[in-house]
Amino acid sequence: MGPVEAAAGGEAPAAEAPAAVLLDPVAALAELAPLGADPVRGGWSRHLFDDADREMRAWFVRTARSLGLDVEVDRNANQWATWRAGGAAAPAVATGSHLDSVPGGGPLDGPLGVVSGLAAVARLQAEGHRPDRPIRVANFAEEEGARFGVPCLGSQLLAGDLTAERVRALTDTAGATAADVLAGAGIDPARIGPDPDRLADLALYLELHVEQGRQLAPLGHPVGLATSILAHGRWRVTLTGRGDHAGATELDSRHDPMLVAAAAIRSARDRAVAAEPGTRSRATVGKLHAVPGGSNAIASEVTLWLDARAEHDADVRALVAAIIGDVEAASAAEGCGVVVVEESFSTRVEFDADLTDRVAAALAPRLGDVPRIPTGAGHDAGILAAHLPAAMLFVRNPDGVSHSPHEGASDQDIRAGVDALADALRALTSGGAA
Amino acid sequence: MGPVEAAAGGEAPAAEAPAAVLLDPVAALAELAPLGADPVRGGWSRHLFDDADREMRAWFVRTARSLGLDVEVDRNANQWATWRAGGAAAPAVATGSHLDSVPGGGPLDGPLGVVSGLAAVARLQAEGHRPDRPIRVANFAEEEGARFGVPCLGSQLLAGDLTAERVRALTDTAGATAADVLAGAGIDPARIGPDPDRLADLALYLELHVEQGRQLAPLGHPVGLATSILAHGRWRVTLTGRGDHAGATELDSRHDPMLVAAAAIRSARDRAVAAEPGTRSRATVGKLHAVPGGSNAIASEVTLWLDARAEHDADVRALVAAIIGDVEAASAAEGCGVVVVEESFSTRVEFDADLTDRVAAALAPRLGDVPRIPTGAGHDAGILAAHLPAAMLFVRNPDGVSHSPHEGASDQDIRAGVDALADALRALTSGGAA
Repeated sequence: MGPVEAAAGGEAPAAEAPAAVLLDPVAALAELAPLGADPVRGGWSRHLFDDADREMRAWFVRTARSLGLDVEVDRNANQWATWRAGGAAAPAVATGSHLDSVPGGGPLDGPLGVVSGLAAVARLQAEGHRPDRPIRVANFAEEEGARFGVPCLGSQLLAGDLTAERVRALTDTAGATAADVLAGAGIDPARIGPDPDRLADLALYLELHVEQGRQLAPLGHPVGLATSILAHGRWRVTLTGRGDHAGATELDSRHDPMLVAAAAIRSARDRAVAAEPGTRSRATVGKLHAVPGGSNAIASEVTLWLDARAEHDADVRALVAAIIGDVEAASAAEGCGVVVVEESFSTRVEFDADLTDRVAAALAPRLGDVPRIPTGAGHDAGILAAHLPAAMLFVRNPDGVSHSPHEGASDQDIRAGVDALADALRALTSGGAA
Repeated sequence: MGPVEAAAGGEAPAAEAPAAVLLDPVAALAELAPLGADPVRGGWSRHLFDDADREMRAWFVRTARSLGLDVEVDRNANQWATWRAGGAAAPAVATGSHLDSVPGGGPLDGPLGVVSGLAAVARLQAEGHRPDRPIRVANFAEEEGARFGVPCLGSQLLAGDLTAERVRALTDTAGATAADVLAGAGIDPARIGPDPDRLADLALYLELHVEQGRQLAPLGHPVGLATSILAHGRWRVTLTGRGDHAGATELDSRHDPMLVAAAAIRSARDRAVAAEPGTRSRATVGKLHAVPGGSNAIASEVTLWLDARAEHDADVRALVAAIIGDVEAASAAEGCGVVVVEESFSTRVEFDADLTDRVAAALAPRLGDVPRIPTGAGHDAGILAAHLPAAMLFVRNPDGVSHSPHEGASDQDIRAGVDALADALRALTSGGAA
């Protein structure tokens, strides 16, 4: 019997203190492991409102209710579980993360943050803590942008950073529009968009996430705090040539967009290396689609996605401009066409220094002086940081691998993360702290 | 009412001369145009025993029967329509091509050969020709190898050039085995394989095909004859790296197989150019698959297909060795792994000079001195050439484009091709000519 089933027997009414229940994060993650396991890619594929994502969402509802939390879905498909514990009406202290994944991703990005949020609430309930304001655990929709191409879809809609019109018209690879997919899941596509009341009801947001990259292991710390997120964006590059026969077409009469794609891949690495050191520049092509995609046919069209990041917005702009310049030169040499569309751009994020200091102080008794590290990965916390105090906790990733089935954290570190999050939430909801 | 429906009313019993019926090849191709049209790639996608291929096959049966031909499917899924016209028992004069396509291919490769074969038979019937041996029209299965990766599957099985064991175990991208797909279409997978009796019942094979490449247009001829097929093959190259986060992973700790793929694409072109002139070398990467394929994830694995061709077998071997050497060097530099599998290799083909001379003589009264040209594309005629006299007719392709929706031939040239094929078949079945 898992930790959730143990609690689910007594359907505690919301807003009353349930019996003290402990939620072990390691056991909860094991319970989620079968959902969305990807037999082709390996790892997990959980994308907005696919079968796996629906099961993850159902788990969220079931688990939060077993802890006596109020569960709601906002107009932008984000889930919220609230512990009122006495009914204080002040804006909530919020934590959470996301339950969707990249294609073939790891088990912790982002379920670790959602599971840890619920486990920290269970811990505080068990110890008899009475928060002076609601504590809220979020599951943000489509953080990875794997289905509709735009990351942090739910939090960006909530914050008003994306127009509802644009989101409704997004399509997945099967051609379904976001409007239809949302409607099919009971979300009214006409009502998606900015939700200022909900935003105003949040005092702050503290997200816990598995570390991406390997900075904590050499420092010997199980938990770290974020300083900033690199500026980053995603560009869709469509290269058009002339489809033809791979055997019958003379070399000098070819217009093969695959050659231009090769130049783009090479340029992304070379331009990022050239921009280093100092800018933390990186550029990646991880997704590429050739049409028609036959082994004995020269492609007529290749689409690739360029992910580019750097310390500051201007660094990213310069990096992408240099790469696109190389692509245009390669395209001209091959007699191909180029169209570049910016799918997303996320400005550099500085997390709230005051909130980060307060979390560090709450963590100090158990963890000492916690390291503060920058990250190259985007997060819902980065979106919310423009609107309210936001901070992040990272749990050590021994190999640093991320967006891969090989992403990991030790059971001991996972539990240390919940300890840290509980310490922070306790401090932030004691004596009018938030 | 199309040409087929016009004839279908009178179900002429096989082996009796039906009423004179003309089959216009342009109208017949128009009738086939809706089948397998690919709304995503453009063009047509017709792969072994998918819905489109089944409809094409049903059209073949219906049309051949309307001409009073005997229709059978051999043990290797190839369709045959035979005109006996008097019942001579000598080995048949065979023509035909294939009705499957590359993904998103053109309308003529290879339906033009099948349609022209049936139209030429209809022409000879209408003029009262009495062949001295059967004339047989073939539709060879999976010529393009688009579903199971091996081109000329049906003709290679017939000729004993592939083992039945290997073919039964081939899988398509959905994971279905060839054995299951054949069984589902009523072909006993236990009985596929060499068919020497059927081969011995063929006196010769003359395939008509749309030209691939652009050699006839500058020469001002609507029809050409083939001299040879370049040696060619297909290699599957799997590159393994380390999947990781596109934003969080430092450049110097990456093992990104996409960089190696870029080197492979570039090398294929550069090595082929370096091998020219004189070898007619060409190398192409038209199909590439990245895992997991997320825009914000470094790929963990990339598979690409290398198509390489040249005048002689040794040229192809040298070309592929040079490209694989480059790929291994790039892979070592990136800390990735490489596995290369040869999916197919087709030795250089010389078409039968005597048969080609006889066809040229038959064409001369209408077309004068018909050009003879080599081709870089593989064909069932190339497979059969190792076992019986084989030759090919090409119909002018004004732009030379192939394996693309933009492949084409004028209506006038299509009809000239049928005239030429009818002239050849008449001569080869008159007075003991074959």
